[in-house]
Amino acid sequence: MIKITLPDGSIKEFEKGTTPLEVAKSISEGLARNVLSAKFNDTTVEVTTPLNTDGSLTLYTWNDEEGKKAFWHSSSHVMAQAIQDLYPGVKLTIGPAIENGFYYDVDFGEHKISENDFQKIENRMLEIARGKHDFNMRAVPKEEAIGYYTREKNPYKVELIENLEDGTITFCDHDTFTDLCRGGHLPNTAPIKAVKLMSVAGAYWRGDEKNPQLTRVYGISFPKQKDLKEYLELLEEAKKRDHRKLGKELDLFTFSQKVGQGLPLWLPKGAALRERLENFLKKAQKRAGYEMVVTPHIGHKELYVTSGHYEKYGEDSFQPIKTPNEGEEFLLKPMNCPHHCEIYNNGHWSYKDLPKRFAEFGTVYRYEQSGELHGLTRVRGFTQDDAHIFCTPDQLDEEFKKVIDLTLYVFNSLGFENFTAQVSLRDPENKTKYIGSDENWEKAENAIINAAKEKGLNYVVETGEAAFYGPKLDFMVKDALGRQWQLGTIQVDYNLPERFNLSYKGNDNEMHRPVMIHRAPFGSMERFVAILLEHTAGNFPLWLMPEQAIILSLSEKYEKYSQKVLTLLENHEIRALTDNRNETIGKKIREAEVSKVPYMLIVGEQEAENGTVSVRKHGKGDIGTMSIEDFAEIIKKEVNSTLQQFEV
Amino acid sequence: MIKITLPDGSIKEFEKGTTPLEVAKSISEGLARNVLSAKFNDTTVEVTTPLNTDGSLTLYTWNDEEGKKAFWHSSSHVMAQAIQDLYPGVKLTIGPAIENGFYYDVDFGEHKISENDFQKIENRMLEIARGKHDFNMRAVPKEEAIGYYTREKNPYKVELIENLEDGTITFCDHDTFTDLCRGGHLPNTAPIKAVKLMSVAGAYWRGDEKNPQLTRVYGISFPKQKDLKEYLELLEEAKKRDHRKLGKELDLFTFSQKVGQGLPLWLPKGAALRERLENFLKKAQKRAGYEMVVTPHIGHKELYVTSGHYEKYGEDSFQPIKTPNEGEEFLLKPMNCPHHCEIYNNGHWSYKDLPKRFAEFGTVYRYEQSGELHGLTRVRGFTQDDAHIFCTPDQLDEEFKKVIDLTLYVFNSLGFENFTAQVSLRDPENKTKYIGSDENWEKAENAIINAAKEKGLNYVVETGEAAFYGPKLDFMVKDALGRQWQLGTIQVDYNLPERFNLSYKGNDNEMHRPVMIHRAPFGSMERFVAILLEHTAGNFPLWLMPEQAIILSLSEKYEKYSQKVLTLLENHEIRALTDNRNETIGKKIREAEVSKVPYMLIVGEQEAENGTVSVRKHGKGDIGTMSIEDFAEIIKKEVNSTLQQFEV
Repeated sequence: MIKITLPDGSIKEFEKGTTPLEVAKSISEGLARNVLSAKFNDTTVEVTTPLNTDGSLTLYTWNDEEGKKAFWHSSSHVMAQAIQDLYPGVKLTIGPAIENGFYYDVDFGEHKISENDFQKIENRMLEIARGKHDFNMRAVPKEEAIGYYTREKNPYKVELIENLEDGTITFCDHDTFTDLCRGGHLPNTAPIKAVKLMSVAGAYWRGDEKNPQLTRVYGISFPKQKDLKEYLELLEEAKKRDHRKLGKELDLFTFSQKVGQGLPLWLPKGAALRERLENFLKKAQKRAGYEMVVTPHIGHKELYVTSGHYEKYGEDSFQPIKTPNEGEEFLLKPMNCPHHCEIYNNGHWSYKDLPKRFAEFGTVYRYEQSGELHGLTRVRGFTQDDAHIFCTPDQLDEEFKKVIDLTLYVFNSLGFENFTAQVSLRDPENKTKYIGSDENWEKAENAIINAAKEKGLNYVVETGEAAFYGPKLDFMVKDALGRQWQLGTIQVDYNLPERFNLSYKGNDNEMHRPVMIHRAPFGSMERFVAILLEHTAGNFPLWLMPEQAIILSLSEKYEKYSQKVLTLLENHEIRALTDNRNETIGKKIREAEVSKVPYMLIVGEQEAENGTVSVRKHGKGDIGTMSIEDFAEIIKKEVNSTLQQFEV
Repeated sequence: MIKITLPDGSIKEFEKGTTPLEVAKSISEGLARNVLSAKFNDTTVEVTTPLNTDGSLTLYTWNDEEGKKAFWHSSSHVMAQAIQDLYPGVKLTIGPAIENGFYYDVDFGEHKISENDFQKIENRMLEIARGKHDFNMRAVPKEEAIGYYTREKNPYKVELIENLEDGTITFCDHDTFTDLCRGGHLPNTAPIKAVKLMSVAGAYWRGDEKNPQLTRVYGISFPKQKDLKEYLELLEEAKKRDHRKLGKELDLFTFSQKVGQGLPLWLPKGAALRERLENFLKKAQKRAGYEMVVTPHIGHKELYVTSGHYEKYGEDSFQPIKTPNEGEEFLLKPMNCPHHCEIYNNGHWSYKDLPKRFAEFGTVYRYEQSGELHGLTRVRGFTQDDAHIFCTPDQLDEEFKKVIDLTLYVFNSLGFENFTAQVSLRDPENKTKYIGSDENWEKAENAIINAAKEKGLNYVVETGEAAFYGPKLDFMVKDALGRQWQLGTIQVDYNLPERFNLSYKGNDNEMHRPVMIHRAPFGSMERFVAILLEHTAGNFPLWLMPEQAIILSLSEKYEKYSQKVLTLLENHEIRALTDNRNETIGKKIREAEVSKVPYMLIVGEQEAENGTVSVRKHGKGDIGTMSIEDFAEIIKKEVNSTLQQFEV
């Protein structure tokens, strides 16, 4: 008998040689039907692998990343078989599961393949899947493995095999198909009920452009046709919400080759949006006791040698800026913290002065390869909503809670309701990796966990994931399409206070080292606006909208009244514009809907006479005729429902 | 007889050989007493030089820069004579008039000189001056001139003479003293009634450190003792108002060697001050139809090759930023205009869309030698309150006027009442130097002059002072100490629209080139804050003060009431702080006076009981006990008296 520990901590006894699938069955038939893969003592195993020792077992279903991975990895085998069946003589290379689906890199030889061939391949894949063929792993001696493929028929697999150590070579068989494989499959092909090939692209063998070019076929598969349908709809929706597309449509930002890739130019509407976001946070930060500072976008190389950034990032970053004489070298600032340390060092502080909270919307520059750049989410210059809190170790607990409050306030005001947190602690087995005293680490880690608990965060603890200079808490938000984004980070730092020799006078009259907290609720203005665009599809909370209302006149005759309404709205601090063009009201409404203005105020004879407006809400339709005051009240209420004052 | 044209255009006839002094006498005895020097047909002449042809004559008094120059140049002769008398054997070199006074570079040989010797030299100078010795110019053949000095006795003067062309060598005699001199003197030494030696410093012969080191003796002189006294008081006051000193005392900004020289770090109070200034201008600009944009602080080298900045400044600037691979080169942006041109180019504009007014508080970086750096007035990184207006040539007139309005609004709101303007036009004799059509230049120059006239500016026109790319208007403000500062510039530009191929569709449906206006009312935030500090000595207009009031409690007992007053003031949007320390009220008041808080609100038993405050005004003293509401009203009135809304 062997003892199997399950994730809930319960221990069950089974006969030696029991498979994970059988363990699942012992729990429930439903689980057995749904189990896709398993992990035994930190190693991925087949659900059909016999377990011969005591150990911990985790079973994965479609709801786990690991389950999906096995599903897609298995699907990739099925696709390879289908391709081989349909295009005899093709050479298969590698075919892993990826974040969404899987791909296989294939040398198609004389065959050509295009999107037109997808249906044919998909049909063959489904045909194979329906056969309910078991996936069977077997170990193969190296010679035999090479003999199976042969250098003539598939030099790629032979190269892979030659690079493997003897004795670890495994093949996976299903139906008539065999592939070199490390394992991690479904029990059989049957769960693969829906497949879709997504695209083809060129890819060099082993990613090296000196090697032959292969064809990468991307696919995705699901246990239900309905899941595939939802995924494709989500993709379609994500395409519509792509912030690069919306940014262009809403005139928010642009890029210029002449200015440089990855360096956004904020157009008037985007700059105004960004400023509203900044002012919103500034106001809350002011209430929370932060002080704004302004620092330059460059710093002497010496500054980054002191901070350690030069040693760590120097060679992979924008290179130093030399001067025409005097031999000075400056760096574009990759982070604001060294500058803020120098501001701290400008004063002489007592424990009574702390915490000092220095905040700056600081634009930083970091080199990224051009291929890695992506809209506003991956750029070479971005503005952090940065702040550094300098406090005594005893204040850490309280400060951490305050930062969480502020971050939650930001998420709530911007409609991110679905978020989780990750607490990253140091590896207790490997304490020498980290800077700072045991006592301080314990204080800080407890402070973070207590704060997360007390604030009711939905959090996980990851041991060993802390930076060498301190533990941290990251927020992950889920957007309206269910995608995860990492947003605000709160990071404790024992390193920079050392390196910059920061100090304060304690109530013992001795000098002490303060602790530093780095934090940025938005993360960066660029990335945040991108996520917000994709989350809201451009329908921002009303308080943030570039235009809150548009006045549509029934004809040019009502231009004067329309102008009067505009002035009245401006008096109520409502951002509005007018459309007095000589166009039909139908066209005006359609265009206003496209540009996502939340409220349309239609004005004609009757409205002008009665001093009213006929109000339509974006995506909702007519909500009645009312006075300007009543309309202003609606706006005020809606704004207040998302945007409350930050309470300290 | 000769015809002499005077500055007012009148023409008078005089006998040939009449001197400027005699012309002055013919106008009035008073003028004759005050005339110090003269210009005849664009050449500086002595007031005793006989005039032998028709021509234009300008007479200068102490009130003219040229008059002061002659005064100080003459004083430098007198100082040289005094030094030669007191330190026989010294070798004189050169001794020009400068902006404030004059200096003489002297090889003192075995003599040493220090501030202790100043009195002695000053006394001897006044003794000489009282002698009323005429200054007499005479031409001297080169050989004779060299013979007078001799290489042994004064190799410096001999070197100067050898470098002069034959026939243009002149000596100036007065009393027993003779100096090599180009001319431009007072009639005699008598007007020099007050002298003061200011300092001594080392100076290399001809500014070359390979040459012998000389001693530079700085002095200044005046026609009245009273003028000297005022000048010294002004100097003393300027020292007190030095923005570097005040910036430190008021905690506004600092510098760090590690961050780099000339790169200001704005401390919380300074950053808040700066933000208030920015918000003030943003608000006015919004009313004036500007749109804010945000652009990065670097740009591809290509961008500056296109703009021409690279060719012009490349080698003397911060050097290009290289990337780890991809071979790209970026430059720190020295100007915002290229970025704004690219933003313009992102759109397709019709004449109906123009003018487009793109504004940005854009931080730019320009290399300055470390020796040239000075506080916030000469830095390596600064934030321009920049905007670029893109308009049709026909809109130039209107736009120029609007920019003047905005600039005057800024000056008025910040207490600069004393300012002049300079209009810089192209040199009509040398039109090929300039880019742009004759027609457009005429339009632009007329637009500027008309605007200056219509807005009632006190302006001078300088022909030939325009940039090659367009005419401009500069504002010069006089600060409280009478010092001139160049502030806002309005600059027309025909060059960048060409270089960036900017266009708009005219009402003829053809594509046209827009005109660009660069403008910055503050100039830069750094320089403006420096000037404002020196102008106001830190007593900013009330709307701008970091703290408008401080609540001083008579003892710790009244802390609670003091806190209540603070909250009430905050509700009135009055920036205030409390001083509840256990100190005497006298000490609290003294400290508040030093930190320049405009209003002190004293609270004790009686105030707490009656809900009042006892108000003291900075520099004025007690102004009575009143309710919080009445005090808020005082603040509101004072703010409104300097800060009105910008009217478009």
